[in-house]
Amino acid sequence: MANLPRLSANWGQITLVGAGPGDPDLITVKGLRAIQSADTILYDALVNPTLLEEAPLRTQKIYVGKRANQHRYPQTEINEMLVHHAKEGKHVVRLKGGDPFVFGRGFEELSVATQHGIPVKVVPGISSCISLAGLQQVPITCRGINESFWVITGTTRSGALSKDIQQATQTSASIVILMGIRKIAQIADLFMTAGKGNRPCMVIQHGSLPQERLVLGTIDNITEQVRVAQIGAPGIILIGEVVSLHPAWHATQNQSLAPAEPISYPTNTFEIPFMSHFSKTA
Amino acid sequence: MANLPRLSANWGQITLVGAGPGDPDLITVKGLRAIQSADTILYDALVNPTLLEEAPLRTQKIYVGKRANQHRYPQTEINEMLVHHAKEGKHVVRLKGGDPFVFGRGFEELSVATQHGIPVKVVPGISSCISLAGLQQVPITCRGINESFWVITGTTRSGALSKDIQQATQTSASIVILMGIRKIAQIADLFMTAGKGNRPCMVIQHGSLPQERLVLGTIDNITEQVRVAQIGAPGIILIGEVVSLHPAWHATQNQSLAPAEPISYPTNTFEIPFMSHFSKTA
Repeated sequence: MANLPRLSANWGQITLVGAGPGDPDLITVKGLRAIQSADTILYDALVNPTLLEEAPLRTQKIYVGKRANQHRYPQTEINEMLVHHAKEGKHVVRLKGGDPFVFGRGFEELSVATQHGIPVKVVPGISSCISLAGLQQVPITCRGINESFWVITGTTRSGALSKDIQQATQTSASIVILMGIRKIAQIADLFMTAGKGNRPCMVIQHGSLPQERLVLGTIDNITEQVRVAQIGAPGIILIGEVVSLHPAWHATQNQSLAPAEPISYPTNTFEIPFMSHFSKTA
Repeated sequence: MANLPRLSANWGQITLVGAGPGDPDLITVKGLRAIQSADTILYDALVNPTLLEEAPLRTQKIYVGKRANQHRYPQTEINEMLVHHAKEGKHVVRLKGGDPFVFGRGFEELSVATQHGIPVKVVPGISSCISLAGLQQVPITCRGINESFWVITGTTRSGALSKDIQQATQTSASIVILMGIRKIAQIADLFMTAGKGNRPCMVIQHGSLPQERLVLGTIDNITEQVRVAQIGAPGIILIGEVVSLHPAWHATQNQSLAPAEPISYPTNTFEIPFMSHFSKTA
């Protein structure tokens, strides 16, 4: 712990919170508590607004997602805001879609806070990379089918496809690609070149939300299916034999043509009439 | 949805719930609600007992984890119990450590229920594979360092090491190995043979719990560190350059000898005095 800046007793704290994949009930109890004690919340486009309603009335809520012109808030501005509010003695919650450290640039925010001597806590979130398949009853791992899963970004810093996807074509791992739907044709090409054209593939948009949509297919036809169904961001691509375990797999894949309409399932939300106070843990 | 058995109106339902990595506050709100409405809970050894206290008084709680003699409950027995209780019209919660589908055999349970025509819902959980590093302020992905992470089981059906680990030595992905601590020497050998002896490595036992312990090192010395610190299951192994971002990395790695005592940090739990009723979503 050497070389850390001196902490100021008057400074606040920052909590990086993963909001989960979209369904507000998929936040953790710990994440919800952080929101309930926040003075300031900086939140992304993918955060469900329902979660913001859980904050106290006094809480300042600041949107730092994509602007109307589709440009992202510069990361340096977000970092400055985090530090500025924390130095005013506030509890600043940085609420991020999914998990803060799965392609979320959460570490850049953590580093800036640490450099300024501001205490930071991390509350993990449910990442879309595992959960969206699971909500569709597709197991990311399955005994006898695979022994691993590999999660890769479709959007690298340079804009090119990650070289890891090329390597991934050579494994039996379930492959999850985040932020890659716009590059589905390129990704499918890599798998076809590797002779994996018949590998099952699922693309999910707006996973875990009422407007969830998905297509099921194989590498050979997935690009056309995504185009016809007009599936776009935000979403995930899952490639692997486990996709054939989807409850609708046989019904959809026996058709000679890809369905023009995407399959739509109700999300598996259910209601319980009341919620007891959850026991506090030390 | 063809060929599904007829549903009986009198049958109950099964909910597969991920309990998270250990800290009870890392369950999702949705998972907590499932527990609060359970008639029967079948739970594993890695589920925090605090979560069971959230169930109604009427709820039957059945332990299906490892027995005293260290043998697992046979999966077929668990499957039979799930079906038996659900057919009595009960809401059966299958509460599993981490996420139900990350090496959890959740799909076998889901399949049996589906074969019997019992409705099944899935509530994802926080998996140790991403969250334990994050709680230690180590990002599983970091811009400029890597573009992916690969999660592999250390315990395959045959007992041999997964071939995926061999392939993983060839990538820049963060590698997470679950259920692999007892094979740390074999795993380290694979990375050393691939010329990756200086790759940073972290082993965490009892992650997210007050008794959490960890060692930081490189492939070259991690086996010795795990031995000296007597780190054992349950835990995770994280191999990758991101480990060098741990706040204690430089302090520990500048020593010429590995520390005899494992580094121990308080988990980042914090308390909020009360919890409002969370708004229900449809």
